[in-house]
Amino acid sequence: MTFPSIASFEDALAAARAPDGAATTAARARQAALTKPAGSLGRLEEIAIFFAGWQRRERPRIDRGSMIVFAGNHGVTIHGVSAFPASVTGQMVANFRAGGAAINALSGAAGLELKVVALDLDRPTADFTIAPAMDDAECLAALNAGAGVVEEGLDLVVLGEMGIGNSTAAAALCARSFGGSAADWVGPGTGVDAGGIARKTGVVTQALAFHGAAPNSAVETLRRVGGREIAAIAGAVVRARQLGIPVLLDGFICCSAVAPLAADNRAITAHCLAGHCSAEPGHARLLDRMGLDPILSLGMRLGEGSGAAVAAGIVRAALAAHGEMATFEEAAVAASL
Amino acid sequence: MTFPSIASFEDALAAARAPDGAATTAARARQAALTKPAGSLGRLEEIAIFFAGWQRRERPRIDRGSMIVFAGNHGVTIHGVSAFPASVTGQMVANFRAGGAAINALSGAAGLELKVVALDLDRPTADFTIAPAMDDAECLAALNAGAGVVEEGLDLVVLGEMGIGNSTAAAALCARSFGGSAADWVGPGTGVDAGGIARKTGVVTQALAFHGAAPNSAVETLRRVGGREIAAIAGAVVRARQLGIPVLLDGFICCSAVAPLAADNRAITAHCLAGHCSAEPGHARLLDRMGLDPILSLGMRLGEGSGAAVAAGIVRAALAAHGEMATFEEAAVAASL
Repeated sequence: MTFPSIASFEDALAAARAPDGAATTAARARQAALTKPAGSLGRLEEIAIFFAGWQRRERPRIDRGSMIVFAGNHGVTIHGVSAFPASVTGQMVANFRAGGAAINALSGAAGLELKVVALDLDRPTADFTIAPAMDDAECLAALNAGAGVVEEGLDLVVLGEMGIGNSTAAAALCARSFGGSAADWVGPGTGVDAGGIARKTGVVTQALAFHGAAPNSAVETLRRVGGREIAAIAGAVVRARQLGIPVLLDGFICCSAVAPLAADNRAITAHCLAGHCSAEPGHARLLDRMGLDPILSLGMRLGEGSGAAVAAGIVRAALAAHGEMATFEEAAVAASL
Repeated sequence: MTFPSIASFEDALAAARAPDGAATTAARARQAALTKPAGSLGRLEEIAIFFAGWQRRERPRIDRGSMIVFAGNHGVTIHGVSAFPASVTGQMVANFRAGGAAINALSGAAGLELKVVALDLDRPTADFTIAPAMDDAECLAALNAGAGVVEEGLDLVVLGEMGIGNSTAAAALCARSFGGSAADWVGPGTGVDAGGIARKTGVVTQALAFHGAAPNSAVETLRRVGGREIAAIAGAVVRARQLGIPVLLDGFICCSAVAPLAADNRAITAHCLAGHCSAEPGHARLLDRMGLDPILSLGMRLGEGSGAAVAAGIVRAALAAHGEMATFEEAAVAASL
C-alpha cells in the first residue's frame, strides 16, 4: 500500500497507531516473574516490553525481520561535499546486490532479509542551494517507494541508506527541523577534512537561506532539502507505524529523515528504537532532540543501516531471554529472602 | 591442563603469550581495503583486528565459542548481604542445567556452547570477615577448575558466574587490589536496599581490616576474600592466555576475579575484552582501573555471563563484516575522490 497524495501521507502521520496496552502489561508481568532479580536485564527488558506492545503479543519474536536500504543521488555533490565521487552510490548498490558490503555481512549476522531499493540513481535530486531537491511528484514517489516496501506481517523493519552527499542533506534537514546553525549539524560524514567541512557548512548555510521563507511542514522540508532515499525512509517509518511494525533506525542520515516528522510530533517515533549513536557529531544532538536513547555506541559512521543491523542482534537477545526463560515458579527458584 | 601448584599459576601469569603481530598487521590492512570509508565501522574494526591477533589469522572466526559459568557458595552470606538466600545458587545451577535461565537464552542467541561448572556448592567458603575464604588447596582446586575447562581449539571463551553473596566478595577484591574504601566498591548487587548496602559495606570494611596485614599478592587476595567461582574465573583467564584464546569478561564480579592479577600487571588482560559495563556502580570504576573499554552499556546487572554473552553477538557481527566484505578492488568501487 502506498499514499495516493502528500495530503494522505500527512493524514497517516496524524493518525498514528498506538501499541497494545494489554500485551505491554502482560510482558511486563512476565519480566517480573522470570528467574532473575527484577530489572537486572536492564535495557533488554525494556526492548522486550516495547516489542510486545507493538507486536501485540506477550512474547514477541522476529520470524521475519527486514533490512531495507534505500539509495539515492544528490545534486548537491557538485559542491564537493563528500570524500567520494557521486558514482560511488551506484557502485555501492552493485556491491550490495553482489553481497560484498558491510550491510550484507551485518544483516546476515542478524538474521535479517536484505532489500536494496535504488531510487532513480541516474536522476540526482536538484542542487538544493538553488532549488528544491525534488518537486511534489518526485517527493511523493520517494515517500511511496519507502512505504511500498514495508510488508504487512514483518516482525521488524530495520532502515538504512546509501547516497553520496546525503550527510549534507541530513544537516540541512536537522537545522530546518530543530533550529541551530549549519555548523551545529555538519560533520565529516564519510571522512572529509576541515576544508570539506567548511564547504559543507557553506552549502547548508546557503540552502537554509534559500529555503528560509518556505513553509516549514515536514513534507516540505523533506522535499526541499532531503533526497529520494531520505524521503523513502520517512515513508517507510510512517507505513510501519500504520501496520504496527517496530522499526530500528540507523545513524545520522537515517534519523534526519524522520527529524522533520518528529519536530512536528515527537510521538511519531514511538514505534522506533535508535539502533546506535554514530560517530557523526550531529547524531547525538539529533537523538537528544528526538528523545531517542540509542542501544549501541560503537563509534560506527558507515550508514547503510550498519549500526541498526548490529542492534538487531541485541533485540534478538532481548526477545530470546524474554521468550525462553523460566519463571521462578516453573524453575522452583526462591524469589527473594 | 591445570596448574600443579600456586607457584606454577604465578609463573603462567608472568609468562603471558602475546598476540601475533603479522596477523594483526594483515587484518589492519584488510580493514583498510574493504568497501567502506576507513575507520567507519568503529569498534567493530578494532574487535576484528584484536581477534586476528589472538587467533593468529587474518580472518578470525568463531566456530567454537564457549560460555562458561562458574558457581560457588559464600560463607559471608550469613551476614545478610544478599537479597536472595544462599540456596538460590544451587537452584539457579539447576535452572541453568534445565535450560531456563537468562544465560541459556543469551548464549543460545549468540551461538555459544554453555558449560556450567558448580564448585562444591555444599561447602561454602569460610566467612572472610574472620578467616581466609579458602585454604591453599581449596584455592588451587578452584583455579584449576577454571583452567581445566578452557579447551585448546576454542575460538572464544566467555566467562560468567553465579554465587549468592559474591558481589560482597567482589567489592573486597577490588578494594584490596586497587585501594579505596569498602563504600567505594559496594553496590546493590542483586538489589539490596540501603540497609543491605550498609551491611555489605560493614562486612567488607571488617574483611579489609582482618586481612590488612596479609601479603597482597594476587593469589593471596583471591584466596582470602574471593570465592571458588571467582578463583575459577582467574584460572580460566590465565589458561586462555596460555592458549592464546580471546576472552569476553562479564560484569562487576567477573572482572573483580581478574582485578588482583591486573593490579600487579595490567597486561594480563591483553587478550580480554569487557563485554559490557553493568549497572553495579563499582563496575565502571573497576573497568577504568583495569584499562578496559566495555563494548556495551545496557544497564544490565544479572551476572551469569549475561552481558558478555550479548557482547559475543557484537563480536560475531564484527568478524562477519571483516571476513565477508569485498575490497574496493574486488567490488570495483572508487576508493575516494
